[in-house]
Amino acid sequence: MNSPVDDRTGLPVVAMVGGGQLSRMTHQAAIALGQSLRVLATDPAESAALVAADVRLGDHTNLADLQRLAEGATVVTFDHEHVPTKHLQRLVDDGHRVAPGPGALVHAQDKLVLRRALHEAGEPQPAWAEARTVHDVTAFADDVGWPVVLKTPRGGYDGKGVFVVDGPDDVADLLERHGTLLVEERVPMVRELSAQVARSPFGQVAVWPVVETVQRDGVCAEVLAPAPGLSEELATAAQELAVRIADRLGVVGMLAVELFQTAGGVQVNELAMRPHNSGHWTIEGARTSQFEQHLRAVLDYPLGSTAMTAPVAVMANVLGGAASREDWAGPRLDERIHHLMAHWPDVKLHWYGKGQRPGRKLGHVTALGHDLEEVRARATAAARYLADGVVDPAFAFEQEH
Amino acid sequence: MNSPVDDRTGLPVVAMVGGGQLSRMTHQAAIALGQSLRVLATDPAESAALVAADVRLGDHTNLADLQRLAEGATVVTFDHEHVPTKHLQRLVDDGHRVAPGPGALVHAQDKLVLRRALHEAGEPQPAWAEARTVHDVTAFADDVGWPVVLKTPRGGYDGKGVFVVDGPDDVADLLERHGTLLVEERVPMVRELSAQVARSPFGQVAVWPVVETVQRDGVCAEVLAPAPGLSEELATAAQELAVRIADRLGVVGMLAVELFQTAGGVQVNELAMRPHNSGHWTIEGARTSQFEQHLRAVLDYPLGSTAMTAPVAVMANVLGGAASREDWAGPRLDERIHHLMAHWPDVKLHWYGKGQRPGRKLGHVTALGHDLEEVRARATAAARYLADGVVDPAFAFEQEH
Repeated sequence: MNSPVDDRTGLPVVAMVGGGQLSRMTHQAAIALGQSLRVLATDPAESAALVAADVRLGDHTNLADLQRLAEGATVVTFDHEHVPTKHLQRLVDDGHRVAPGPGALVHAQDKLVLRRALHEAGEPQPAWAEARTVHDVTAFADDVGWPVVLKTPRGGYDGKGVFVVDGPDDVADLLERHGTLLVEERVPMVRELSAQVARSPFGQVAVWPVVETVQRDGVCAEVLAPAPGLSEELATAAQELAVRIADRLGVVGMLAVELFQTAGGVQVNELAMRPHNSGHWTIEGARTSQFEQHLRAVLDYPLGSTAMTAPVAVMANVLGGAASREDWAGPRLDERIHHLMAHWPDVKLHWYGKGQRPGRKLGHVTALGHDLEEVRARATAAARYLADGVVDPAFAFEQEH
Repeated sequence: MNSPVDDRTGLPVVAMVGGGQLSRMTHQAAIALGQSLRVLATDPAESAALVAADVRLGDHTNLADLQRLAEGATVVTFDHEHVPTKHLQRLVDDGHRVAPGPGALVHAQDKLVLRRALHEAGEPQPAWAEARTVHDVTAFADDVGWPVVLKTPRGGYDGKGVFVVDGPDDVADLLERHGTLLVEERVPMVRELSAQVARSPFGQVAVWPVVETVQRDGVCAEVLAPAPGLSEELATAAQELAVRIADRLGVVGMLAVELFQTAGGVQVNELAMRPHNSGHWTIEGARTSQFEQHLRAVLDYPLGSTAMTAPVAVMANVLGGAASREDWAGPRLDERIHHLMAHWPDVKLHWYGKGQRPGRKLGHVTALGHDLEEVRARATAAARYLADGVVDPAFAFEQEH
């Protein structure tokens, strides 16, 4: 069937499942390209629902809601991985374009499926096993040694659904609560990296520089682009790995391959098949942002240049901190933004409009420049000030209250 | 009174009068800053109305529509100059923040008011007079020589309302049709420049590099940033002139000072007090775009860095051309965008979503780089291909039909 377009513009209608910040930032990119973004949100106060023109309220686990979303859309895509595979298959069967397709997306939804696929492909990954019983776990630990990492195959994010266990004591309880688990060796890693590529149905791929992702409490705190001190050899290997995975799985759209860097190379941690936190720096730091590229890829447009716009880009997340607590008595958000703008006139702010809660990803800032230490100090100080109201001594300034 | 904010986010609500592409691109900037843009559009198919979450349909010359727009907004601002001054004054009297205020904005609305103000300020401008009769015009022409330029004081844009007359023959007719006119000498100009500044209520100003604007048939076709070959002395003089005008008139928000460069220096052509076509290059070409800066300025946030992100930026407008005509048989818009992306992966597209009509500003493209000739060739070839379907021989490519 012919791809539907927006009659008003003659250009594509992209239906995105999920109303979070990824959808919000995709909307900005869609505006430039003349496209119409249709958002499926569960609540009118969600980040993207606050700013998009075409918001459908509904449940991403409800087939009828998904079918209504897809009707008249050129393509259906995602800002999260929580849509049941069978519903996606049904949309495909109904003749809708879904990108990434259900057969690819399941590798970002189910960590056991991913592990099996990478095993078959011979790609580097931690030692792992499927664990249905305590014995499965202890037998695995006999091989690789304690502690081991237990993961729920589905539904985990930002450190949720991940349990490091030092011995067999808690395993029975975890299995009872979560059912079948993935058990992995704890990788002796140097640091975490992310390799992002976009792939179009035509098979074109575009690769950004590999970045370092700095996690705190299992949540991404900073992204350093390019990954400092990474050898060209290893960077190329990581990019080639990401391209191989994208090709083999038939990914359409953005793919982030989260990697552990070890003494011997890299191992695949997990995948995301959508714009990803590790690529927010591309909005200002690359000629084509991951959000624009995702749209180009899912619509089978030729992909854009991934060249960096500056030698160094650092993204720092604003994670809800002291200033998000109910007893916060310091400057309110709008005042903090004033101070941020006054002191860092070249730091770029992205605020998601979500309710402020401790630990929540509320926004991010990006700084560009030549010197990693300087750029990183600027980005992290700005993010910390927004989150906690704490003024880094290196950037001390008079606060007016 | 306290400034209203969006209860959902704790951040400002910016009400923008006008639903054109300036409002559309301002929405992109508002999304990053966590702000809520409320758009007054006259038609749901207007450029910004297609993409903004909060669209109010109404008439910008109707006071009640303006009052409903302003209710609950932190500030009211504009993407055009067509709101009657008395209505703006009423909003101010009602306690609303209006930026720029009516006393400043009138200088962008009425060319006679501007000429008088610049005269009083002693700023450089063409010789001019107010013309109510044919004799007013012929007496002026006796001084400065024919041809002279007649302009309607209000309502002109993109060359409309501007008449070059070689002698007195048509003058009576023009005066009868338009009433009082502004008559100006035809300035022997070298080229046209634009000096953009932003000014906040606090009085902070931020200045971008002076650019050259290349007009065709009275419409901006290209913008070259920075203006090639402009002496530092003249660039500084133009920037200082723009700052003096912003200060003297009490501008709040963006100000574009359109200039004639002559053998002896610069003269003021006209003003725009809003984001302006001569500043579209700032989206990718400057650390802070004119759209973000306009929001920062009208909300009295500290202003952002205006540093360029590359040595050269060129913006080319896509003006409705052959491909907009009803008899067009070449590749349709979506196909042309495919070709554009394939051949210029580092050219940035901004498509406004408007109906395609010959002569209309349908979108723009921006290219960045080091070498002006190369960057300009790239931008103009891409824009021309979108507009006319014409492939520049320098970028010849196989067209698949």
